[in-house]
Amino acid sequence: MNFTCLELHKGVKKIFESAGFNPGDSQIIADVLLAAEKRGIPSHGIIRIKDYLGLLSKGRLNPTPLISIVYETPSTFVIDGDSGAGMVVAKFAMDKAIEKARTSYTAWVAVRNSNHFGISGYYSMMAAANDMIGISMTNANPLVAPPFSTDRLLGTNPIAVAVPAGEEPDFVADFATTPIARGKLELYEKMNQKVADMLVQDKYGKPSNDPAILKDGGAILPLGGDPEHGSHKGFCMSAIVDIFSAVFSGAGFGPFVPPQLAYLTPVKDAPGIGLGHFFGAMRIDAFQPADEFKSYMDCWIKTFRKGKTIEGIDHLIIPGDPEREKEQLSEKNGLTVNEKIMDELFESLNKMGITSPF
Amino acid sequence: MNFTCLELHKGVKKIFESAGFNPGDSQIIADVLLAAEKRGIPSHGIIRIKDYLGLLSKGRLNPTPLISIVYETPSTFVIDGDSGAGMVVAKFAMDKAIEKARTSYTAWVAVRNSNHFGISGYYSMMAAANDMIGISMTNANPLVAPPFSTDRLLGTNPIAVAVPAGEEPDFVADFATTPIARGKLELYEKMNQKVADMLVQDKYGKPSNDPAILKDGGAILPLGGDPEHGSHKGFCMSAIVDIFSAVFSGAGFGPFVPPQLAYLTPVKDAPGIGLGHFFGAMRIDAFQPADEFKSYMDCWIKTFRKGKTIEGIDHLIIPGDPEREKEQLSEKNGLTVNEKIMDELFESLNKMGITSPF
Repeated sequence: MNFTCLELHKGVKKIFESAGFNPGDSQIIADVLLAAEKRGIPSHGIIRIKDYLGLLSKGRLNPTPLISIVYETPSTFVIDGDSGAGMVVAKFAMDKAIEKARTSYTAWVAVRNSNHFGISGYYSMMAAANDMIGISMTNANPLVAPPFSTDRLLGTNPIAVAVPAGEEPDFVADFATTPIARGKLELYEKMNQKVADMLVQDKYGKPSNDPAILKDGGAILPLGGDPEHGSHKGFCMSAIVDIFSAVFSGAGFGPFVPPQLAYLTPVKDAPGIGLGHFFGAMRIDAFQPADEFKSYMDCWIKTFRKGKTIEGIDHLIIPGDPEREKEQLSEKNGLTVNEKIMDELFESLNKMGITSPF
Repeated sequence: MNFTCLELHKGVKKIFESAGFNPGDSQIIADVLLAAEKRGIPSHGIIRIKDYLGLLSKGRLNPTPLISIVYETPSTFVIDGDSGAGMVVAKFAMDKAIEKARTSYTAWVAVRNSNHFGISGYYSMMAAANDMIGISMTNANPLVAPPFSTDRLLGTNPIAVAVPAGEEPDFVADFATTPIARGKLELYEKMNQKVADMLVQDKYGKPSNDPAILKDGGAILPLGGDPEHGSHKGFCMSAIVDIFSAVFSGAGFGPFVPPQLAYLTPVKDAPGIGLGHFFGAMRIDAFQPADEFKSYMDCWIKTFRKGKTIEGIDHLIIPGDPEREKEQLSEKNGLTVNEKIMDELFESLNKMGITSPF
């Protein structure tokens, strides 16, 4: 189905309002989901609404959370999200980090008792818009097996880092610590496509090309694929994200992250509370006068942009370029959402007794 | 050749004293090089001494640096290493970060005008020994090509993160953001072994298995190997390390990192000064009372240690386990250094007119 960005945003906002969220929070959720669609990351857009509504209907997502600061020091704090929507909790946390960094120059926030927060890059870009380096990470559904393991102990645990530039667009890296994201496997499955080697394994730890293998005890591999290609390094990255997001904050870690899918049951008597995030904001003038910082960052970007390419490739890609270009096109041409995804959404709205706004 | 750890440490210290370093700095360099040998990372140990001496003889390494803080805010600072040995500069920086974090709870240091600092984990472990989370990263010789590029624009840019635990040994992740480190390629070459697919490419960007391909314009691939397996994510990690180490501090970035090999010439009129590092120290009680933090980190480690394994594997590996176990064995059984590495060292000492201490 085709939409203008505004139509789709209005509709998404209305869905969350109908589901019991206040207009401000519905707006935040719609902002982040639409940012994913516009930036060409549909795995984190409309496809997720059915999951959020499912969690809501099971009482695992709180539409009216009381988000609070539960621990604070001169440069850090810990937030309890009261089981709210990840976007609402994460935006609250990054707003507070930006505010605190104004006086402490850097500020770091660990968050517990939250839920899936959409694209990680959204929050790091909030800091960059305030002349700060933004760092954002989250743990996620346990679907990733460490090297030599058949156990799903980690999530795809993404990291995003945004660094302000001057003339050039900001550097925005936003990536899962696995070679493939769960949402992408779901898209492959919907398109009846196999996945490449060294991305997923079956329940015995043997190689697989089945995008639906997670439903049969399989697992996603860490970045690197196998130990010979450095999968222990991908595992380290993913473990660091899990520890920063959950051990720092007291959230559920690794296998105890509450699944962000209503048909999967959270582990009983799990240590920790809810899903965890970690955010950082560092003023660029914490290291150099802001103008000098930006001009040197421009120099970095220009240097990499004009790197030599292999045959057939026009120019190198700076992290953030493809998403920004896609966003501009989306604003101009509108968005297309896969029919199957819309059908699932309609079905989910129907179950909840919500009239579709589309 | 076989040594006790103490013999080898004494000898290395003596070499640097003979080369013009003061006893305190020679001790620090020996500490870090020996830590690499003992922890089973010989690619960052004795094999590097010839490179350091080569840089020294070309005036690119300053044996008597005046290391200074050139910029400071409540939670950050920037250090100029005056072209000193990376170990000496890095230890100074992490000591200062630990000191600052005592009052500001977190402290972040960007370093310019430094050189190769050995194993990244050494500095993050300094913080962990002080009940702080330690973060350490550095940029390095440009040898890594971004996805779709034939240009060596990045180094193997390692990251280390150490997190204090309670009953359990600390979590210590220390890894290059490439599937293979340069030092390891050098070891493969010395052992006349080919390397696996998807680790290096030739000068045209085509696959290669030659560990010596870097000498013929080839490049190391980012973690992930190829774009289908997420090499853009390894590129992002490596770029982040480069930006944090060099753009924040004003060091040489990417292709302008001064090569840590005397036979390679630094780029003329390059932007930035010397090689860059980035360090962070965060008190664990910046997030939770220290005892609770440690006990929850123990819980994380125990959970992952007892994860299910594939057939034939006894137990899962926690980052830091293999290096710690190797260190204990090395202390007990002594160290063996490859004959070719010792021969090259003797040759290098000879050229410098230094009597071998071995």
